[in-house]
Amino acid sequence: MTDSTKYNRPKLTLVGAGPGDPDLITVKGLKAIANADVVLYDALIDKELLSHTKDNAVKLYVGKRGGMRSIKQEQINLLIVKYAYEYGHVVRLKGGDPFVFGRGHEEMEYAENFGISTEIIPGITSAISVPALQGIPVTRRGISESFWVITGSTKAGKLSKDIELAAQSTATIVVLMGMKNLSEIVSIYQRLGISQTPVGIIQNGSTSKEASCFGTMDDILDAVSEKKIKSPAIIVIGKVVETHPQLAEVLSEINHY
Amino acid sequence: MTDSTKYNRPKLTLVGAGPGDPDLITVKGLKAIANADVVLYDALIDKELLSHTKDNAVKLYVGKRGGMRSIKQEQINLLIVKYAYEYGHVVRLKGGDPFVFGRGHEEMEYAENFGISTEIIPGITSAISVPALQGIPVTRRGISESFWVITGSTKAGKLSKDIELAAQSTATIVVLMGMKNLSEIVSIYQRLGISQTPVGIIQNGSTSKEASCFGTMDDILDAVSEKKIKSPAIIVIGKVVETHPQLAEVLSEINHY
Repeated sequence: MTDSTKYNRPKLTLVGAGPGDPDLITVKGLKAIANADVVLYDALIDKELLSHTKDNAVKLYVGKRGGMRSIKQEQINLLIVKYAYEYGHVVRLKGGDPFVFGRGHEEMEYAENFGISTEIIPGITSAISVPALQGIPVTRRGISESFWVITGSTKAGKLSKDIELAAQSTATIVVLMGMKNLSEIVSIYQRLGISQTPVGIIQNGSTSKEASCFGTMDDILDAVSEKKIKSPAIIVIGKVVETHPQLAEVLSEINHY
Repeated sequence: MTDSTKYNRPKLTLVGAGPGDPDLITVKGLKAIANADVVLYDALIDKELLSHTKDNAVKLYVGKRGGMRSIKQEQINLLIVKYAYEYGHVVRLKGGDPFVFGRGHEEMEYAENFGISTEIIPGITSAISVPALQGIPVTRRGISESFWVITGSTKAGKLSKDIELAAQSTATIVVLMGMKNLSEIVSIYQRLGISQTPVGIIQNGSTSKEASCFGTMDDILDAVSEKKIKSPAIIVIGKVVETHPQLAEVLSEINHY
């Protein structure tokens, strides 16, 4: 064989790219990209990150949105194994953190079952960073002692039952992938009689396309349609949302009446 | 005045350094350090990160542990303001993520009240990354749809009441700064009759001094004293902990009896 890369040891590195801004990847993640023989990347990955690969690296889009036909998870798993044995070091570049609702652990396990060595390089999760970049801390002494991160879309495509329990706690709640179930979330708060709870929604956080709206459970649906906020968006719920300047202004107006 | 730095615009950038490994800082965080006139850094910050500053940058340790006399939060706030007006760009370098139990938001607000412009650069939180680096995902399809991050030491120094509620949920629970209240946590699970819940404890995660132990609520206190696990450590609780190879081995042994 003339292609020397065929002798590389098969390896998979899961790399979290962070919330969107390419500078929010870790130094370690960028080094892995520079070392990769193959990069399999998701939707929402900034192309600037792909410019750090070796010249002869294979770069393949395996995102599940925006394409003509969606690639299945099983196909991604197979591609990882195939490329690791064919080329050596496969970097699986995923948005946010690979172990936060990312199916990263499944990909890792699948590769390990084929004798491929694996490594994980964590990424900045949008659950914490996207509110933070809007000035909203998920925890704050005297306001919130905990935060709960929930998927708005479970395996069955439904809203997680944990949301109902979370709504009754003092935790800051962050819902990822929850936009299509937002009215159901609002209903839960109304049913529990706590519809005055502050809520913020941030679309495309950390990027130049960032858009957001703030309010309470009572008026957030109107705000969302007025500002045309859509997926991908983060929903952040709880008293810490009041620290946002925009909401603080609205609340002070209300208090004037 | 001859010192040109005195004309810099006062600015505060909060930078999250990540869980310990210096390569787990973000590219953006490292750029901020390189641009800083002053770096105020916490305990547990790898000194390697400080080597990226300008030659004439002021570097000051303001950690709250390990020192002869502990610095108070009020003193840190004042130092930020003083240095920002004296030198210009102050980077406040904090372990993990600045908005996760880090009092980062308080520091930001304090500086803003003095007319200092602020920016936050998120960091990799140890809550997610330290379990991940041990191969434990905080979420996993079919096992855990959410994760709840709680402080083990509130303003009053007590265990957060959220833990009791969290224990009754299906969420993965991550407790930060909870080692001194570990026996109280164990009691809660025993009282609720769910002491078979898997638990992992990881000290100095992501560094060369990493140590860990795994088990269930019933035997974790023994494991901790046997392996001499101490603060700073992360406690991770829930079914996802079973994905750890070491625990999987123990569980399969138990099933043989």
